[in-house]
Amino acid sequence: MRKVKAAIVGASGYSGEELVTLLARHPMTEVVALTSRQSAGRTVAEVFPKMSGSPLATMKFVDSSADALAVSGAETAFLALPHGLAAEFAVPLRAAGVQVVDLSADFRLQSTEVFAEYYGGPHPAPELLKEAVYALPEICGDQALRGAGLLACPGCYPTSIQIPLVPLLRRGLVAADSIVINSLSGTSGAGRKADVSLLFAECNESLRAYGAPKHRHLPEVEQQLSIAAGIKVVVSFVPHLAPVTRGILSTIVAKPANGADAAAVEAAWEEDYAERKFVRRVRHFPDTKNVTGTNFIDIAVREDSRAGNLLLFSAEDNLIKGASGQAVQAFNISQGWDETTGLL
Amino acid sequence: MRKVKAAIVGASGYSGEELVTLLARHPMTEVVALTSRQSAGRTVAEVFPKMSGSPLATMKFVDSSADALAVSGAETAFLALPHGLAAEFAVPLRAAGVQVVDLSADFRLQSTEVFAEYYGGPHPAPELLKEAVYALPEICGDQALRGAGLLACPGCYPTSIQIPLVPLLRRGLVAADSIVINSLSGTSGAGRKADVSLLFAECNESLRAYGAPKHRHLPEVEQQLSIAAGIKVVVSFVPHLAPVTRGILSTIVAKPANGADAAAVEAAWEEDYAERKFVRRVRHFPDTKNVTGTNFIDIAVREDSRAGNLLLFSAEDNLIKGASGQAVQAFNISQGWDETTGLL
Amino acid sequence: MRKVKAAIVGASGYSGEELVTLLARHPMTEVVALTSRQSAGRTVAEVFPKMSGSPLATMKFVDSSADALAVSGAETAFLALPHGLAAEFAVPLRAAGVQVVDLSADFRLQSTEVFAEYYGGPHPAPELLKEAVYALPEICGDQALRGAGLLACPGCYPTSIQIPLVPLLRRGLVAADSIVINSLSGTSGAGRKADVSLLFAECNESLRAYGAPKHRHLPEVEQQLSIAAGIKVVVSFVPHLAPVTRGILSTIVAKPANGADAAAVEAAWEEDYAERKFVRRVRHFPDTKNVTGTNFIDIAVREDSRAGNLLLFSAEDNLIKGASGQAVQAFNISQGWDETTGLL
Amino acid sequence: MRKVKAAIVGASGYSGEELVTLLARHPMTEVVALTSRQSAGRTVAEVFPKMSGSPLATMKFVDSSADALAVSGAETAFLALPHGLAAEFAVPLRAAGVQVVDLSADFRLQSTEVFAEYYGGPHPAPELLKEAVYALPEICGDQALRGAGLLACPGCYPTSIQIPLVPLLRRGLVAADSIVINSLSGTSGAGRKADVSLLFAECNESLRAYGAPKHRHLPEVEQQLSIAAGIKVVVSFVPHLAPVTRGILSTIVAKPANGADAAAVEAAWEEDYAERKFVRRVRHFPDTKNVTGTNFIDIAVREDSRAGNLLLFSAEDNLIKGASGQAVQAFNISQGWDETTGLL
Repeated sequence: MRKVKAAIVGASGYSGEELVTLLARHPMTEVVALTSRQSAGRTVAEVFPKMSGSPLATMKFVDSSADALAVSGAETAFLALPHGLAAEFAVPLRAAGVQVVDLSADFRLQSTEVFAEYYGGPHPAPELLKEAVYALPEICGDQALRGAGLLACPGCYPTSIQIPLVPLLRRGLVAADSIVINSLSGTSGAGRKADVSLLFAECNESLRAYGAPKHRHLPEVEQQLSIAAGIKVVVSFVPHLAPVTRGILSTIVAKPANGADAAAVEAAWEEDYAERKFVRRVRHFPDTKNVTGTNFIDIAVREDSRAGNLLLFSAEDNLIKGASGQAVQAFNISQGWDETTGLL
Repeated sequence: MRKVKAAIVGASGYSGEELVTLLARHPMTEVVALTSRQSAGRTVAEVFPKMSGSPLATMKFVDSSADALAVSGAETAFLALPHGLAAEFAVPLRAAGVQVVDLSADFRLQSTEVFAEYYGGPHPAPELLKEAVYALPEICGDQALRGAGLLACPGCYPTSIQIPLVPLLRRGLVAADSIVINSLSGTSGAGRKADVSLLFAECNESLRAYGAPKHRHLPEVEQQLSIAAGIKVVVSFVPHLAPVTRGILSTIVAKPANGADAAAVEAAWEEDYAERKFVRRVRHFPDTKNVTGTNFIDIAVREDSRAGNLLLFSAEDNLIKGASGQAVQAFNISQGWDETTGLL
Repeated sequence: MRKVKAAIVGASGYSGEELVTLLARHPMTEVVALTSRQSAGRTVAEVFPKMSGSPLATMKFVDSSADALAVSGAETAFLALPHGLAAEFAVPLRAAGVQVVDLSADFRLQSTEVFAEYYGGPHPAPELLKEAVYALPEICGDQALRGAGLLACPGCYPTSIQIPLVPLLRRGLVAADSIVINSLSGTSGAGRKADVSLLFAECNESLRAYGAPKHRHLPEVEQQLSIAAGIKVVVSFVPHLAPVTRGILSTIVAKPANGADAAAVEAAWEEDYAERKFVRRVRHFPDTKNVTGTNFIDIAVREDSRAGNLLLFSAEDNLIKGASGQAVQAFNISQGWDETTGLL
Repeated sequence: MRKVKAAIVGASGYSGEELVTLLARHPMTEVVALTSRQSAGRTVAEVFPKMSGSPLATMKFVDSSADALAVSGAETAFLALPHGLAAEFAVPLRAAGVQVVDLSADFRLQSTEVFAEYYGGPHPAPELLKEAVYALPEICGDQALRGAGLLACPGCYPTSIQIPLVPLLRRGLVAADSIVINSLSGTSGAGRKADVSLLFAECNESLRAYGAPKHRHLPEVEQQLSIAAGIKVVVSFVPHLAPVTRGILSTIVAKPANGADAAAVEAAWEEDYAERKFVRRVRHFPDTKNVTGTNFIDIAVREDSRAGNLLLFSAEDNLIKGASGQAVQAFNISQGWDETTGLL
């Protein structure tokens, strides 16, 4: 069967590494280029020793340039780049007819004003926003992704929040003005960057909140929750850093609406997710260790009838369902394949 | 100067070990007995190798019995025992005129009905409840502790929640029906017990909620917040387990009332805590690593004006400010000493 | 294609869990029974929440009994049981013609006297020792495994030691009386057992040796090194416990013999391992994180010409190459399949 | 009592932070200056949030300059600087009559050739070497330190190795050509520097050797062991990185000489260390968690009579006994105070 030729741009960070791992074993994809400014000229096995012995082990990283990508013949380019830079690559790639699967924040927000407020500058390619599909398959549905040319893959926190909440907001099962979100993330979420605050000796035996009340993922969360609710949704979102390498756990507290209880929540999830392979509705409290290394997201609900709240929980691997696995999942659907291709 | 003779009952758990460490260097206290069922006959250095070379290193644990305590001549007994068992010891000790500093839950709740609901049986010594002082010094004040015969030391989570919240509820600065509490705890909070779910290989790389919505510390939290507010306060409380040995981080989201903002919160804290040595009001997000090994609790506030919430944060060492350090602090005050004696 | 019917006996420990994971996706195997005394009656997903959604998720554990195994029609039984108990199961299984792949120590040692000395009692089934094949594929070779009825899978430490050392001893490249082995293991090596010394709060921020000089794996190591050398080999072996969940790192120091240098070591490895898929000879220092979750073992050599020593390093996942993965690898070969079947 | 005025130069790294913590509570010392290039102008509490509320909390870091130190009136300067830079500060300080307690490697090696080989350049201040005292109190003895003007504090690994080995080499109890040292270190040993290889996500769940066979601490180890033995000692030294913040564990394997056994080792230790407060001879395997946060070093011995080796073990906190605590200990002795002043 003909394979799709894929390039991974910015392949030496944590999300990039995960993409390399996933696409190396993807049955429908041929990796034709890996780019990285700092790793150009080195092999995959040199940069990622754990990939020694894999089929891609001897492939060399090339410099991140539009020319290198054109030469590679890539039909799809996965962009694992910082925001801003991703758009710079997306523009010529789209002009050349290459499908772009973007893991950055550049095409997630519909409003260029909001982008400017949270990302500190004007949007780098507003003309592409119209084309972009917000590629959370369980929420946007397969149809929206089929044949899409520009996939804006969701952020890690927003994924962990939308999966449990969107079905409820769509049905008016929670009060839109009552939502409080606390999330815990492992340190790989901050990327493979030389930063003293991310050192082992700084993060170990440390628990702390950060980024509240205006973390960069907040507008993405609110945009998507608002779409689901049909009204503007504003939330409190408090991310925390915990000493794990991988994983995001989100705990969401909200007032039920229209008489919703745990059974109604589970019914809504059943309706929206019965056919989705990567959403696991569980009875126990979701634990990041159960999803690490997979594209699954585990969700659960509890009723706090004393306080009159619904408690929602989700656990995902921030680098897989929260980033690279989800990108591959959306890419699969865009190509007309089963969403699980190469992911189980 | 004459020293107070102290016994530590149930000294081989994590709180007990911390008490031994603290009282071993306490300038006004002489440790006259250490009891432990499973460690009886062994020396402190054998049970706690890190105490080799300390003045108490060669002291032997004795069996946990009322007789052993009577023989020791202890004037104060610190009880680091499971709930229920603590009360069994407290009754004869109080009858014999021994001061009891209880770290268990037995004397924290004023209502025996609530105790029975959350602790699975009738209260073991209701006759002592009247005498008990809920010994959170920053909240109850020094006067309540002076000469007290039975100190009910607060739980670890309740301490981390009351310190930031009580001054606000006293002043009506937050809406009493809007409080959402998410807490993260290290695994030592569950005690030194042989339980598969607490193994390193189970807790490492794991983040999960547990115990919600009716954790055993909930009624203690609500009792104390209700006293502060003057009305019944019901909250949502979601504890989480994180892979750290020590530390509790609490993140509290609540609606402001009466026009409160961050400045009003800080003013309330200033009024209540200006003279308290162990409450540190900080500007950064509190981090458990900054309080580990100390009796400090760090608190901070953020305004989430978009969502109309106040965000409160606290960090403490669950075994010190959340247990043994606080017990010593309250004991110090009960004896008329400076609260920091032996704790800095 | 016809699949081999397999049972996993003692499936609820860490090695058992890993076997379930590996065999669930093995293309040539059908899992027909999972046994566990403590988990009987529960489903795979209940016992191992991370397996929710897998094909085996709803399979129920049955009690560990010979009858249950007979009923299952299993053709191969993987025993993930404590030593002694494994032999009790092996006897009737072999009598019934079932292939036994034993992960315990029961059939690793050729000498029943040594077994008795290190395992505290007479050997439970000496009559089966003759049939047992010490199933380290890279050392025993494929031929020895073809059609074998009783596979004695190596211990985790012995695997990490034999892979780098055996080729050298076979060729007389190191002095047999000069070998010093220091190994570091993650805590899962001690099993999923309720033991205070394995608690997160005990193992975190802790580094210590244990078990020296007579760890139970020592006689297995020496037996195998002696076979390779053709003379009796006695070594110093010091295992250490480190705060990781998975992984064994072994550092071996030995005097070169017959003029051996690093190049000679690499040549020996090349000769013995060029065709073996799971031995990766690397230039960098092996790191357990590069092999975690895989059946690979990474090995490297350094010359310490100043002190006149060779330094050998190996890294493996103790639960995979050190236990369950290796068992599947040997089983594959015994069945005539490629050794990597179901393992990549 | 008059206090000694002390400055800490390069105070914002891990060793510097530990020095600040120790000297802040030292009863005989007044900290008059803290210098740091990157933290100049900020307060202690801002740079080290855990020191909020300490007496030094509001002290400001000043730029690391000779002028700043002169102005401060410091009588003793602790240098927590990179090698090379330390010597640059030491020269003018000594010229001005200031006592220098140097934690870098600059004055540890007697040979400038060896310094050049291992530190990549000519020695920056050879004229000061004659004055420098290698300040390992338990080895050099108190007399050598009394009134010393330039204290060269030992490295972390060398301390952990010399304490168990030197008494044996002095008495010919081990064969000088048989020594194999494996050490495990926490990540704080590499310093607070922005380096990707030290990130939490890189170090967590990772075990690996590094730096062998010629780690920078090797010549220091061999110099000191040679002095003790009276003959040139060459060793194999393999350091490893483990996922703990603090702690060094060293495991030393050596052949006994002159009929030495474990009792002879313990007798030698007793003779040399009976009066030393910070060396704890223990029966169990030393564990870094027992010494973390203290200036203790725990040592133990085992006989491996089968292989004919002695096994020696030591555990220390790399930042305290391996760096800052030891510096304060040596400083105490140099001033004529008890070695434990401010350290218990």
